[in-house]
Amino acid sequence: MNTFDLKEHSHTRLNILTGDWILVSPHRTKRPWQGKVESLPADDRPSYDPKCYLCPGNSRADGSVNPAYTDSFVFVNDFSALLADTPAGELNVKGLLQAKSEAGVCKVISFSPDHSLTLPLLSVEGIKKVIDLWAEEYRSIAASNPAIKSIQIFENKGEIMGCSNPHPHGQIWSQYSLPLEIVKETNRQKAYFEEHQRSLLGDYLQVELESRERIVVENEHFVALVPFWATWPYETMIISKRHVQDITRFSEEEKVAFASILKKLTAKYDNLFEISFPYSAGMHQAPVNDGEHPEWHWHMHFYPPLLRSATVKKFMVGYELLANPQRDITAEWAAEKLRALPEVHYKENAK
Amino acid sequence: MNTFDLKEHSHTRLNILTGDWILVSPHRTKRPWQGKVESLPADDRPSYDPKCYLCPGNSRADGSVNPAYTDSFVFVNDFSALLADTPAGELNVKGLLQAKSEAGVCKVISFSPDHSLTLPLLSVEGIKKVIDLWAEEYRSIAASNPAIKSIQIFENKGEIMGCSNPHPHGQIWSQYSLPLEIVKETNRQKAYFEEHQRSLLGDYLQVELESRERIVVENEHFVALVPFWATWPYETMIISKRHVQDITRFSEEEKVAFASILKKLTAKYDNLFEISFPYSAGMHQAPVNDGEHPEWHWHMHFYPPLLRSATVKKFMVGYELLANPQRDITAEWAAEKLRALPEVHYKENAK
Ligand SMILES: O=P(O)(O)O[C@H]1O[C@H](CO)[C@@H](O)[C@H](O)[C@H]1O
Ligand SMILES: O=P(O)(O)O[C@H]1O[C@H](CO)[C@@H](O)[C@H](O)[C@H]1O
Repeated sequence: MNTFDLKEHSHTRLNILTGDWILVSPHRTKRPWQGKVESLPADDRPSYDPKCYLCPGNSRADGSVNPAYTDSFVFVNDFSALLADTPAGELNVKGLLQAKSEAGVCKVISFSPDHSLTLPLLSVEGIKKVIDLWAEEYRSIAASNPAIKSIQIFENKGEIMGCSNPHPHGQIWSQYSLPLEIVKETNRQKAYFEEHQRSLLGDYLQVELESRERIVVENEHFVALVPFWATWPYETMIISKRHVQDITRFSEEEKVAFASILKKLTAKYDNLFEISFPYSAGMHQAPVNDGEHPEWHWHMHFYPPLLRSATVKKFMVGYELLANPQRDITAEWAAEKLRALPEVHYKENAK
Repeated sequence: MNTFDLKEHSHTRLNILTGDWILVSPHRTKRPWQGKVESLPADDRPSYDPKCYLCPGNSRADGSVNPAYTDSFVFVNDFSALLADTPAGELNVKGLLQAKSEAGVCKVISFSPDHSLTLPLLSVEGIKKVIDLWAEEYRSIAASNPAIKSIQIFENKGEIMGCSNPHPHGQIWSQYSLPLEIVKETNRQKAYFEEHQRSLLGDYLQVELESRERIVVENEHFVALVPFWATWPYETMIISKRHVQDITRFSEEEKVAFASILKKLTAKYDNLFEISFPYSAGMHQAPVNDGEHPEWHWHMHFYPPLLRSATVKKFMVGYELLANPQRDITAEWAAEKLRALPEVHYKENAK
């Protein structure tokens, strides 16, 4: 009998965090590829590059000089998309042309003074220092200006993800209104919390921990898994076992566990094709300066573009842009692949 | 006085078709670029390529042989993401894991037997034949199966847009449920139509035709413009002046006018950086086999990725994926650039 099977048949899956459905076509991986092949960026960076505007002691676009920093280092983006001194105002022509001014602050955070050390190559202690800075920035940016409502901490890794400088770094964009994805995730989590008095992601995590089909790595405080509704081929999410709203609420022990799972997950990513694996990643956290958000459950998304190999990515193009996100491999298949890979980085292993 | 100015200050704009807001950062174009530079694909294709699976007389992946076609040619995709014989079924684990089977038909449409002729290089008559085939496919796919509710006609042009074969071609993906973008656009158009008894896009077009700030090309029956809420740097939309639901309702005269504006718009695109300009483009039309949709107004979106030059694109990455779509140049600036370019293709001009 030909009965419906998620492993074989085209289907849609619900993203419980956004309410959107994604299209999965499990049989489609066999199609031949005569299309674009990415070139691999050089992966033999020195520890210090005199021309890099993130290395210690070098000067930046605005003429200022980086301190001789020893851990991580944060500064206001010299080309911020959002500025604090934007005048308020709006436009409304018959409801058809609508615009509102938007202010905020954009920061850059260098993960370490070493030009060559991506997250998976930093020590757990090194990653823990980045986490401490993320937490401190989240707290202080919110405290600095009550008009700031949303703080997006993220990393674009690899030039294929639009990273404009290879020195390992992330960004923090904070702003006065809630961006689209945060609006969607707030609405969905709120509706669930009001109905069940429990965290949506907490309940989801229970289901995943029972089935274990999509779990990639787990420790005492965090789980990394391929979400049931993953869009990008090897998309994952880190979810905290404890239901907390943001990174400032983690204990020291939790922060060390977070550093440890970050290192293992990103090492598995690099091990997949034995390259520095590109992705965009970022934490989703409760809005700030906006009252209580008991519904919010901290998590971190990883959106990696590669599909078949180090040089062939998934294109989110015609159908995906005009109609609906679509993927070719199933979440379960991707999770199994990642789970089976060593947790130790291929470069550290070789040592 | 520093008053709010769309040309200078960061702001958000409402996409009236989806209800989403996009972030515009007009001052941000000055940032330096040390990131990824695209390689340009070869642009000297022969009229016939013996290895191309779309050229007349050649054989395809499934072993079948293309006819010696003289106009355009359509066939079922050998690697369809959607298949007609998918068994119905669904999964629901506590509302947290939800999936539904999805069926449909995916077709490929070769624009002409000539391997080298992209849309802007075809004659108006040649484009008119493609339009006739689009209309006939839209009609016959809907008629062939009452379960089909949505038909997405689109083109991925250029390898940077995931196009897997350089022979100019488009695709048609039809399916049983409504994809995300069509759901959003249906809801917004319906709400407006119920309130005003007029087409949302019709009223929007009036506002644009009065201001002319964002108009790129216009003829008796169609307007090509940069929408006020454009996300991609040189995003445009073709809107029909007459409020019709889909391509089958156009008169012969309208189809010729559509062919003509398609040629002019895509020629301007190629003229911008004097390359074969990549984009994903596609028509949005009313759902089929789904009763009347008087609210729907036919239109065609163009989503081109290039930002600064032929080799530097806009990356929709970290902030954009995790928070909100963002752009650096304003819609008005992009429209002015495109408007000022010749309507005749640089290659045809040189002849
Ligand atoms: O069907 P093609 O041309 O091989 O594939 C292309 O278009 C599809 C529809 O937008 C995308 O899903 C693919 O990622 C892209 O490479
Ligand atoms: O700020 P950067 O690193 O120069 O820029 C990168 O990240 C930004 C935020 O996701 C994007 O808007 C840019 O397209 C991308 O190139």
